[in-house]
Amino acid sequence: MSEKQTVSVALIGYQFMGKAHSHAYRDLNFYFDNPLKAELKVIVGRNEASVKEAQEKFGFESYETDWRNVINREDIDVIDIVTPNHTHAEIAIAAAEAGKHIITEKPLALNVEEAKRMLEAVRKNGVKHMICHNYRYVPAVQFAKKLIEDGKLGRIFHYRANYLQDFIVDPNFPLVWRLKKEVSGSGALGDIGAHSLDLARYLIGEFDEIVATMETFIKERPIGEMTGGLSAKGDTSQMGEVTVDDAVTVLARFKNGALGTFEATRFATGNRNKNKFEINGEKGSIRWDMEHMNFLEVYFADDEIGEQGFRLVNCTEEEHPYVGAYWPAGHIIGYEHTFIHLIDAFFRGIASDTQPTPNFEDGVINQRILEAIEQSAEEKRWVKI
Amino acid sequence: MSEKQTVSVALIGYQFMGKAHSHAYRDLNFYFDNPLKAELKVIVGRNEASVKEAQEKFGFESYETDWRNVINREDIDVIDIVTPNHTHAEIAIAAAEAGKHIITEKPLALNVEEAKRMLEAVRKNGVKHMICHNYRYVPAVQFAKKLIEDGKLGRIFHYRANYLQDFIVDPNFPLVWRLKKEVSGSGALGDIGAHSLDLARYLIGEFDEIVATMETFIKERPIGEMTGGLSAKGDTSQMGEVTVDDAVTVLARFKNGALGTFEATRFATGNRNKNKFEINGEKGSIRWDMEHMNFLEVYFADDEIGEQGFRLVNCTEEEHPYVGAYWPAGHIIGYEHTFIHLIDAFFRGIASDTQPTPNFEDGVINQRILEAIEQSAEEKRWVKI
Amino acid sequence: MSEKQTVSVALIGYQFMGKAHSHAYRDLNFYFDNPLKAELKVIVGRNEASVKEAQEKFGFESYETDWRNVINREDIDVIDIVTPNHTHAEIAIAAAEAGKHIITEKPLALNVEEAKRMLEAVRKNGVKHMICHNYRYVPAVQFAKKLIEDGKLGRIFHYRANYLQDFIVDPNFPLVWRLKKEVSGSGALGDIGAHSLDLARYLIGEFDEIVATMETFIKERPIGEMTGGLSAKGDTSQMGEVTVDDAVTVLARFKNGALGTFEATRFATGNRNKNKFEINGEKGSIRWDMEHMNFLEVYFADDEIGEQGFRLVNCTEEEHPYVGAYWPAGHIIGYEHTFIHLIDAFFRGIASDTQPTPNFEDGVINQRILEAIEQSAEEKRWVKI
Amino acid sequence: MSEKQTVSVALIGYQFMGKAHSHAYRDLNFYFDNPLKAELKVIVGRNEASVKEAQEKFGFESYETDWRNVINREDIDVIDIVTPNHTHAEIAIAAAEAGKHIITEKPLALNVEEAKRMLEAVRKNGVKHMICHNYRYVPAVQFAKKLIEDGKLGRIFHYRANYLQDFIVDPNFPLVWRLKKEVSGSGALGDIGAHSLDLARYLIGEFDEIVATMETFIKERPIGEMTGGLSAKGDTSQMGEVTVDDAVTVLARFKNGALGTFEATRFATGNRNKNKFEINGEKGSIRWDMEHMNFLEVYFADDEIGEQGFRLVNCTEEEHPYVGAYWPAGHIIGYEHTFIHLIDAFFRGIASDTQPTPNFEDGVINQRILEAIEQSAEEKRWVKI
Repeated sequence: MSEKQTVSVALIGYQFMGKAHSHAYRDLNFYFDNPLKAELKVIVGRNEASVKEAQEKFGFESYETDWRNVINREDIDVIDIVTPNHTHAEIAIAAAEAGKHIITEKPLALNVEEAKRMLEAVRKNGVKHMICHNYRYVPAVQFAKKLIEDGKLGRIFHYRANYLQDFIVDPNFPLVWRLKKEVSGSGALGDIGAHSLDLARYLIGEFDEIVATMETFIKERPIGEMTGGLSAKGDTSQMGEVTVDDAVTVLARFKNGALGTFEATRFATGNRNKNKFEINGEKGSIRWDMEHMNFLEVYFADDEIGEQGFRLVNCTEEEHPYVGAYWPAGHIIGYEHTFIHLIDAFFRGIASDTQPTPNFEDGVINQRILEAIEQSAEEKRWVKI
Repeated sequence: MSEKQTVSVALIGYQFMGKAHSHAYRDLNFYFDNPLKAELKVIVGRNEASVKEAQEKFGFESYETDWRNVINREDIDVIDIVTPNHTHAEIAIAAAEAGKHIITEKPLALNVEEAKRMLEAVRKNGVKHMICHNYRYVPAVQFAKKLIEDGKLGRIFHYRANYLQDFIVDPNFPLVWRLKKEVSGSGALGDIGAHSLDLARYLIGEFDEIVATMETFIKERPIGEMTGGLSAKGDTSQMGEVTVDDAVTVLARFKNGALGTFEATRFATGNRNKNKFEINGEKGSIRWDMEHMNFLEVYFADDEIGEQGFRLVNCTEEEHPYVGAYWPAGHIIGYEHTFIHLIDAFFRGIASDTQPTPNFEDGVINQRILEAIEQSAEEKRWVKI
Repeated sequence: MSEKQTVSVALIGYQFMGKAHSHAYRDLNFYFDNPLKAELKVIVGRNEASVKEAQEKFGFESYETDWRNVINREDIDVIDIVTPNHTHAEIAIAAAEAGKHIITEKPLALNVEEAKRMLEAVRKNGVKHMICHNYRYVPAVQFAKKLIEDGKLGRIFHYRANYLQDFIVDPNFPLVWRLKKEVSGSGALGDIGAHSLDLARYLIGEFDEIVATMETFIKERPIGEMTGGLSAKGDTSQMGEVTVDDAVTVLARFKNGALGTFEATRFATGNRNKNKFEINGEKGSIRWDMEHMNFLEVYFADDEIGEQGFRLVNCTEEEHPYVGAYWPAGHIIGYEHTFIHLIDAFFRGIASDTQPTPNFEDGVINQRILEAIEQSAEEKRWVKI
Repeated sequence: MSEKQTVSVALIGYQFMGKAHSHAYRDLNFYFDNPLKAELKVIVGRNEASVKEAQEKFGFESYETDWRNVINREDIDVIDIVTPNHTHAEIAIAAAEAGKHIITEKPLALNVEEAKRMLEAVRKNGVKHMICHNYRYVPAVQFAKKLIEDGKLGRIFHYRANYLQDFIVDPNFPLVWRLKKEVSGSGALGDIGAHSLDLARYLIGEFDEIVATMETFIKERPIGEMTGGLSAKGDTSQMGEVTVDDAVTVLARFKNGALGTFEATRFATGNRNKNKFEINGEKGSIRWDMEHMNFLEVYFADDEIGEQGFRLVNCTEEEHPYVGAYWPAGHIIGYEHTFIHLIDAFFRGIASDTQPTPNFEDGVINQRILEAIEQSAEEKRWVKI
């Protein structure tokens, strides 16, 4: 174990996701026998005071205020991008050209064109790439995937997903970067809907066509900025236009014939982070909800009649993906662990010279769906994926 | 009380809904101080042996095998129509012209044109009319309505509803009348989706426009017939084409600006009769599920921070609609009670010469939405309501 | 069916339980093919205005104000006793001597001595007798019984039951008959604890020994009387001593080696009528809760590892006891239906000349346990049953 | 932050709890602004291969195979004891005499006499001491404590707790140290029941008297040893006697007049680690369950009538203890985080020269209750605490 190889990481960005990624690098080898271990070389942010504080807290060796200063450093193996969405493409392409492995937050980019250029860059330069759809790495979700692949649900009829938040219901919540199209690309759609769409692809396969509608319930907000993961402060004397969606609803048809419904909203009062899905197949069904992420509700149609019912499976057994590395059955894990699993997959990809998933290919497809949804909402028609 | 006036009822049809209605007439005055009481005069069905059995079991004075024989009888005050959908219009119009009060199962008719003629007939003849959207009469649902009307949820952003069943997932479930367009008009859409659409109108208001898609997962089935509420037997040697939808998904925009998502399916394995909705408003949210019909989950945004959460309200208190007539708080009621409340409203309408709701006007609007959904699914476009 | 034999019923008492029993007689033959049907002959109560109102509402042919006037009437087959507990013995013994079949509310009597005399009387006179532990007749509970009898849980290790109410937490709730030892025998113990104890006996077998403690949290209350099932009004200017327990907790050992814990209280704020139990066996476990009475949570240890979990079984299928008589799967029933099933069993006992259960023998055993619990609480020691 | 003082830790033991503690030391400063940070100096275990593996995995600088070699080392500030229970006293007393701060797993010792000697030692030597009742440090539990202290529940009537596990239901689960009285002191009682008892004391106050019973369902098991947190392997050819309880049930009276019921068992099939409690007060109630540790169910009696119900509070808001250090509201944490909070409190105690809680005083009281329970079970009588 002492002969473990080290991967040097430069983290571009340091807020909500910066913290989640940093923690994952630190905890990875405590729990998992990954062949690689991270060396937290440098963290990058434009605000020097803030990035310095993050550097100390997260345990990086140094900090920088301009990502261009680190992208070509020879002592860096991985560029980890957790900045706002409009910067992903430039940084990722530069990193690829510098021969760095890349992991980036979702959505991959502002649009399909950018996303494709990013994919092209990582392909051309032969680096490993990953996009942080961390919910794929919830043990219960991976177990759902296994059940589906094992044919335990049979032919899939329905996929229904909601991603419900409520952090901007208050009209005084300020106009932060997440609410500006030029920075974030879209609103609830790209921020949380993207996760639901990715999970659907992961679990039951590719989309065929969609129709969608989007709404911005509060059109103007006070100018302001994020102060934490999903918190912010603003100045109500200055108002600005919200240029992204507050909510999006989608009907989908999948290539396998299944019907899908999707909803992503930041206006579902009482739901802080309700990311859930239900899948109905001919032989069984599955329900899952991130607020109870350790549990999977599973129904098998061939259980004895009279004894049929959704089983509440606490996915904390040795048999369930990843959790054997933690605690005895019945002892739950939390949100942050999804990132550990994702980094575990990323490093295994690097170590074994194979592409981990989800990667930029998934990012491009996801971006295509996001763009189709925006197009559908605008043109009020079905759009092929 | 002994001077209670009697209403003579002729029930056309005697299966699932016939039983539910018969029971409601019988139990009404046991629980409620309704000014009227039912006299179960005659029950009508084409199969003499079956209708005779129903007559005895349900407690009707007599039976008939042709509804035409009862529609003009002077000793009949109410015609209650629980036959398959394609017969509603003819019976209802004849009943209206005979001056009878009418209560009919949903959906009102096979199409808007029929529905309008029915409405015209009851209006012209000045009779009371009602459509059996019984879920409006769940105490928890009526309490939800009250909360919304009292402004406890504020502006409404979202309405999301699923009506999930699974009784025809088996491809050998036969081609019964519920699966034939000429008899039932549509499949999951009119049978269960109609309930969800009506609840949405009742709770948050009128639809503005919709887009929808429909699917028939199993295209051919053995010829057969219903043997009970949702059970059937068939003959696999003879196959026939399923001409209705197995599932329908809908996006909606309401006139008040809210977004809606709807799904009705008979292919949601593990869900026997999962009729549920969630409503998100600026000041609160509500969740409800017919399988746990006595409970309403309610969230108030102005609860103290840290103590906020969905409250599981057992709607069995004196303060909740209807249930004061039953048992002490905490003692639940069931599916059949919704029909008692509906008949209670119907009879109060007759007694006070006012139109109960939901009535044929609601039926026409509902039919218009059903038709718009079918049109949208066929033409793959948004349709105004 | 028209040749169904009639059983003439005299109901002694007319409040909460009077209503529940009356309803059951009325609905029995609507749902079930019982060989007998009830004729509601006479209802008895001391307050003439109230009993007259009940007579009309519940549909009895006549009323009386003294039970002695009906007990020997030749046209009466069944005496149904729903009066306060201190009157059970006298009425039941008189009824037995008059050769009437008897059904009585629980607890059977004020003490074991009374209970034994009652049992002796019914035995000597060869009448059918039943005690209304209606929770045995919840379909989910009967299905639990079946699972246990089929060996699906294997050897039983644990039985834990709570019966939690909160209707007298307010110190101004008056001193009604339920709070007076001379009328009710005991408080939470006999009123609700008795149900839990009976369910335990029904499901896993006889008690061996118990230790218990009892508490009266509010020692004095305003004088007053019941105004409904569990509601009351009082006069705070006059106070009286509460002479029964507000709460009781019990440890038990069963003859089969299982451990039991029981708790009955009227001071469990927020729990209106939370009657629940959990059973753990070597091969499986069961959980049930009357507020969600249609559901049984079932765990099977031999489900595949990784897919194990409590199944939420909605006991509304044809395979589940009694419910096939009602509605399609997924359509729930309520509290009142338990009495229909119990009366169904009572009448079948009469028709087939066999003793239904639970009957006075169960009542005597239950009374012995109640008495042992009081003794244990008083003497602070374990008591053999 | 760079001037943070370092605390050197020697960890005695390296299995389930060793891992949990090690992780807590590592993650503490990532999330919390604790004035101190841990230096993981040395880990101790008798099996050299295993402890070496643990040293590398957990990140300790070195390892030792005899705790006596580290107890007096000048470079050690803290002795952390996670060995089997029979070794706690000797190690802790030696550590106290060496002037080390001590944190030890529960139960404190094998008996009250040992526990008292330990308390005496830490007092005499003026070191900080803590006992790892980590469940006190669940944010939802701390929030429950706050609600109670703020008087939101009013006078407390009931405390009911279950700690249900099922890892030894299989009679072939071997006779590991946890099942030997001379090593572990007791079985379910000391291992998990001790947690429930501590939570009760923490939340509502001191015990007055108890009565209890204990049972060993499987008297003989194959000889074997633990292979993980709660897993083991054995050799069925050699059987040995189980000398601890498989299950214990307890009735309690608290000094404040509340009634308590407790149950701890390893034979509750289907319950992997179901640690739960419910508290009923005159003004409100609380329910909590470790499997859903982030949630607290809270009922307030003064909520508007009709809108009353248990609120499902996701304790992940800034307002809830500790969780502000992690992720935005709605993003849950897991089992391991309880140890981070506990270590945070331990280090703050060291830094500020104040005794953290729970400490050896709590351990002594807890031990007294454990001993009283054993005495009560043996002598079959109530025992004063």
